[in-house]
Amino acid sequence: MEPDAISNATPTEEMNGAGNLMDFLDEPFPDVGTYEDFHTIDWLREKSRDTDRHRKITNKSKESIWEFIKSLLDAWSGWVVMLLIGLLSGTLAGVIDLAVDWMTDLKEGVCLSAFWYSHEQCCWTSNETTFDDRDKCPQWQKWAELMTGYNEGAGAYLLNYFLYVMWALCFSFLAVSLVRVFAPYACGSGIPEIKTILSGFIIRGYLGKWTLLIKTVTLVLAVSSGLSLGKEGPLVHVACCCGNLFCSLFSKYSKNEGKRREVLSAAAAAGVSVAFGAPIGGVLFSLEEVSYYFPLKTLWRSFFAALVAAFTLRSINPFGNNRLVLFYVEYHTPWYMAELVPFILLGVFGGLWGTLFIRANIAWCRRRKTTQLGKYPVLEVIAVAGITAILAFPNPYTRRSTSQLISELFNDCGALESSQLCDYYNSPNMTRPVDDIPDRPAGPGVYAALWQLSLALIFKVVITIFTFGMKIPSGLFIPSMAVGAIAGRIVGIAVEQMAYHHHDWIIFKNWCRPGADCVTPGLYAMVGAAACLGGVTRMTVSLVVIMFELTGGLEYIVPLMAAAVTSKWVADAFNKEGIYEAHIRLNGYPYLDQDEFTHRTLATDVMRPRRNDPPLAVLTQDSTTVEDVETLIKDTDYNGFPVVVSRESERLIGFVQRRDLTLAIKTARQKQDGVVSNSMVYFTEDAPQLPASCPQPLKLRRILNLSPFTVTDHTPMETVVDIFRKLGLRQCLVTRSGRLLGIITKKDVLRHMAQMTNQDPESIMFN
Amino acid sequence: MEPDAISNATPTEEMNGAGNLMDFLDEPFPDVGTYEDFHTIDWLREKSRDTDRHRKITNKSKESIWEFIKSLLDAWSGWVVMLLIGLLSGTLAGVIDLAVDWMTDLKEGVCLSAFWYSHEQCCWTSNETTFDDRDKCPQWQKWAELMTGYNEGAGAYLLNYFLYVMWALCFSFLAVSLVRVFAPYACGSGIPEIKTILSGFIIRGYLGKWTLLIKTVTLVLAVSSGLSLGKEGPLVHVACCCGNLFCSLFSKYSKNEGKRREVLSAAAAAGVSVAFGAPIGGVLFSLEEVSYYFPLKTLWRSFFAALVAAFTLRSINPFGNNRLVLFYVEYHTPWYMAELVPFILLGVFGGLWGTLFIRANIAWCRRRKTTQLGKYPVLEVIAVAGITAILAFPNPYTRRSTSQLISELFNDCGALESSQLCDYYNSPNMTRPVDDIPDRPAGPGVYAALWQLSLALIFKVVITIFTFGMKIPSGLFIPSMAVGAIAGRIVGIAVEQMAYHHHDWIIFKNWCRPGADCVTPGLYAMVGAAACLGGVTRMTVSLVVIMFELTGGLEYIVPLMAAAVTSKWVADAFNKEGIYEAHIRLNGYPYLDQDEFTHRTLATDVMRPRRNDPPLAVLTQDSTTVEDVETLIKDTDYNGFPVVVSRESERLIGFVQRRDLTLAIKTARQKQDGVVSNSMVYFTEDAPQLPASCPQPLKLRRILNLSPFTVTDHTPMETVVDIFRKLGLRQCLVTRSGRLLGIITKKDVLRHMAQMTNQDPESIMFN
Repeated sequence: MEPDAISNATPTEEMNGAGNLMDFLDEPFPDVGTYEDFHTIDWLREKSRDTDRHRKITNKSKESIWEFIKSLLDAWSGWVVMLLIGLLSGTLAGVIDLAVDWMTDLKEGVCLSAFWYSHEQCCWTSNETTFDDRDKCPQWQKWAELMTGYNEGAGAYLLNYFLYVMWALCFSFLAVSLVRVFAPYACGSGIPEIKTILSGFIIRGYLGKWTLLIKTVTLVLAVSSGLSLGKEGPLVHVACCCGNLFCSLFSKYSKNEGKRREVLSAAAAAGVSVAFGAPIGGVLFSLEEVSYYFPLKTLWRSFFAALVAAFTLRSINPFGNNRLVLFYVEYHTPWYMAELVPFILLGVFGGLWGTLFIRANIAWCRRRKTTQLGKYPVLEVIAVAGITAILAFPNPYTRRSTSQLISELFNDCGALESSQLCDYYNSPNMTRPVDDIPDRPAGPGVYAALWQLSLALIFKVVITIFTFGMKIPSGLFIPSMAVGAIAGRIVGIAVEQMAYHHHDWIIFKNWCRPGADCVTPGLYAMVGAAACLGGVTRMTVSLVVIMFELTGGLEYIVPLMAAAVTSKWVADAFNKEGIYEAHIRLNGYPYLDQDEFTHRTLATDVMRPRRNDPPLAVLTQDSTTVEDVETLIKDTDYNGFPVVVSRESERLIGFVQRRDLTLAIKTARQKQDGVVSNSMVYFTEDAPQLPASCPQPLKLRRILNLSPFTVTDHTPMETVVDIFRKLGLRQCLVTRSGRLLGIITKKDVLRHMAQMTNQDPESIMFN
Repeated sequence: MEPDAISNATPTEEMNGAGNLMDFLDEPFPDVGTYEDFHTIDWLREKSRDTDRHRKITNKSKESIWEFIKSLLDAWSGWVVMLLIGLLSGTLAGVIDLAVDWMTDLKEGVCLSAFWYSHEQCCWTSNETTFDDRDKCPQWQKWAELMTGYNEGAGAYLLNYFLYVMWALCFSFLAVSLVRVFAPYACGSGIPEIKTILSGFIIRGYLGKWTLLIKTVTLVLAVSSGLSLGKEGPLVHVACCCGNLFCSLFSKYSKNEGKRREVLSAAAAAGVSVAFGAPIGGVLFSLEEVSYYFPLKTLWRSFFAALVAAFTLRSINPFGNNRLVLFYVEYHTPWYMAELVPFILLGVFGGLWGTLFIRANIAWCRRRKTTQLGKYPVLEVIAVAGITAILAFPNPYTRRSTSQLISELFNDCGALESSQLCDYYNSPNMTRPVDDIPDRPAGPGVYAALWQLSLALIFKVVITIFTFGMKIPSGLFIPSMAVGAIAGRIVGIAVEQMAYHHHDWIIFKNWCRPGADCVTPGLYAMVGAAACLGGVTRMTVSLVVIMFELTGGLEYIVPLMAAAVTSKWVADAFNKEGIYEAHIRLNGYPYLDQDEFTHRTLATDVMRPRRNDPPLAVLTQDSTTVEDVETLIKDTDYNGFPVVVSRESERLIGFVQRRDLTLAIKTARQKQDGVVSNSMVYFTEDAPQLPASCPQPLKLRRILNLSPFTVTDHTPMETVVDIFRKLGLRQCLVTRSGRLLGIITKKDVLRHMAQMTNQDPESIMFN
């Protein structure tokens, strides 16, 4: 279009510097096309900028070999970024696992042969370890033993207790201080914020290098301190930080917020992949739970990143068993139709727990935001860590790390299992094959374990509510799963014992004859964990696939699915929102969720100006001066202004961004001679014929968006919401019979949706 | 809006019957909102119709218990449909598997104890079978033995040969005749058409009951006839027919083309789930390859349908091994880094095969469409079936069914394997554990097998090109996989023997010491199969996940992924189109694919009217008569007409569908008094004040779409394409400064895209 403008220009104009003007405007302004912090990106614009860039490179690539190689490198950069993300996030996950292992054990004792060994590594390398007492070896000494020489007695117990609490306080203090001082964004699970960022919001520094470093370090400290939190959510944040870091290596990604978000979606998949050792589950999690815009190309790349991450983690082998997670299990007995009843009951429990947790946690977090409580984050963390440690130590099921607890609960009682949970009476003439042990009566150890597990359940339920949302990295996958696994294991043992003692009951008669191995309490624990996780997060497919990848068999997918479906239905009956959406709303992020909007309102009900408002702030195409524009910018805080033919006709020709306008005027005033306050600003293709006495006009067609999105005032809001969601718009203009009536911004849409569901519309962040 | 119109109406108008008019227009016309055959649906309209329906039911549900129950049933109907689809498609898949098994064996012989037993079942039930000779038992007799009493000698061989060919001809003749006579739509794989239907096109009868019945029957016949085709693609079609069938049970789905497509997406997932025993792979296939609009709710339901289908199939247990597919495998040895080289070479082979196959097959299909060849489909099928049978019989690897071939090629040579492919020299002092046999020198059987496999490879490559696209149900998953599996097995044996004979070579030194089991030829076959399937279909994630579900271990996902990536890159370097897209284009279906549109054109370059065309056919809001409208409808064949304020101002107020207009005028002329040819048609909210002498006006605001989609003439076409794709539009109006300039339909977009890629734009079907 521009060459036409030049050829049409009169000689006078060219002498006045219109030629210079063109050159100057053909170069991009510095910072044009970037966004301010806490603003929403325009997906369509980002996409068309990327297409332009791609077109340029393709055209250039025909010019020389070097340009061709550059274009190839550009095409490959996506895969390179994925590879790097996979390698780094796999490595970080491995390092975190090793460090957590060591530091968790450090609370109880130290390895004398090499202090950097964890308890298991210490005894594994020792020659004096027998198989039955795997966790006892002389090299590993508890603190009391090391300091006083005694390992038994009340004194030693109290000393160990005291040091356990001290270490916990020390770790948590360090964690919260690091977060406070160096990277405030490193706290929490990060998933609500990442969801918001992926939907097109800008939060500068949220995925920065400092956040990456501090989050990795403090995550280790927070998990080791024994607080009721997990590393899974924060690992997603860490992986996304890696993604952002590697984006900056390639201008394709660093300069385009849309493309950057494609990389971040893949990074989220890599994060879940290493968190659960489930690459496919990770990709589905990113697709289902986190991502907003997920083209198929991204699906394939996410899968690649997730696989690389998983294999990197596996080659680090943090658990020493060639597995990606501590709680990988293999069951050997099938499940029976009748067991669906307890599985569905566990689903109901999961749904209720999810509802309770979300309500209580949100209420507590709101209280933290609004009262004095929020002013003492360090004190809060230390208090909770102290209480957790004091209550956790006496109970063996809470003293160890939560992942170890889950791992033990998931496991089937094989013949070699020495845990308290496997303390069954064995019949003396049993041949004891490894995998196929018939149901047996529970011994005293099992009954003791049941009591301790019940106490652990109550403890976990309560403490998790207060823990999630504190100013340290905290994920809630692991605590949720722990709650479910404990409940599931208790139910499993109950069903098993019922079946053993009542073989003749009708429900057991068909599948549970004496001597048959018919109930696997570990499977119940897994089903319970899935149900509770589902209740809290409302994940569906990705949840089932993650669990499926943990068990590695299609066999158990039906119980898992039954529990997940039930849990989601029960929880949705109370409230449709998962924990992440609830936190997004609590923090007022402008997130347009995927739920259907079903109210019968029209665009005209939502657009501004409302009935009694002043008229819409518009610019005219050729009758505004620089001063008028500057006044308009000063007096209003809109993100952009529609440009119309004239105020009378109200016919829309385009839309101009506030930021671009400010920059253009500033640059013109500095660099372009003759642009003064009463210069005319014009947006038309050809400059109007001005008398020579007039000051040099300012031509701004270059920054005018000639294809603003419009809808008519009669468009139903459900369609408008759909358009905003699918096309990722920032704003949309409303017209009737070709006349401009008003504007709808993403913020207006969100406010309207909040009003329709009776929420507080004022809590939405400026955008 | 309408109540306002009534209250504003003057008494005169009400006396003239405006009240009646309102009542009449409040009722839907018969057939309003349905679409004609070979037309494109309007996704936005379907969606808002469903929201309306939902709103009505929700409002009613508060009125009485009965309505509440009805609303619950409505909410559950989605799950019920999924359950039914899963059950029926699982059952059909099981029946097809059993029937194919029996009929394939029928070509060679018959079971005397029970003629409905397949060879394997016959000998399995026999007591005289020994383990080593599993496939020899007196109950199973070849035809020559049964008829002449001799099983040996040239005469018996020739008789068997003759009968094999006769059965093949008979089956294929039956198949093609049934398709020709009863259900022409039952031919082909169906996936290109299903992709098109899911993208919003209407092909009546394509998913009908007759198609379901005939496709199921003829699929069995076609596969049994020994033609080089598979049942996987057609199973997707069968599952979609089931989906369509169950849609008709619920008005929620049967009356809404958008909702119906959600069900069909899930049905496609169920189809792949039973075809490969891969529920997760099926869902991803539907997401990646088939579906167009795939909301998350559908993902979850698809997963449910896929699981139900898989478990139904497993409870039928067609292969007698509790597995869902014939070619489920478990490998026991790991793979080594150096093996990535042959895997990547297999990927290159797969990509080349994909390119060759697509080009040759499309060229042949185009010839079929344009020459005399297309007029004799029955003869063509019989000829190809005859040639296939004649060439296939002498070679043991082509004589058996293709799935059995793949199954044998995938399998590792365990100690108990008696196949020719496992004829290795065993060292006499070997202890022969079942799973861990070291690499051994190949025996004469293996070398003979290599020759036969090479011939089989050439045969399959050539014959598949001519088979796919004939007028019988034909999938190409299995033939493609067979080509890859043969090539892979050959490469695998070559690498194995090289490693055995050259333990000292540097590349083998580290991982392949003498006596080590380092090369698994079966894995090479699987990798080759994945590569070839990827080259033909360009599947990525779903391909790897399907293969992963076949092997059931994360271990082998890297080789599969390496081959799939290479194969896709190689094939994409030649042509971006997969076989399904190529067939869609060949048939001229209006399918808007997901590729990026990167050309620098604007809406103004695509819209109609073009520069020298007559002006756009528009209606004015209040100055047209019934006769004018009828003339316009008669003279043009547009699907709809924009309505403007007046021809001078060209300001757009809405869009009216041709079909609705025709129906409204027809109904008004029949039922409404006083509507004659020179009645005024008006689209305004209030009727204009007409003198009493004027005939009764016809008010048509009810059928006017007040929120037509508009873009400006400066909108880049990449944005327009994006909008069409994401919002599923049928047409879009083009404006400049509020004036209507032209219209862009989906057909215009497709034609423009075809022009930009130098294809024949005229081949696109009317829409």
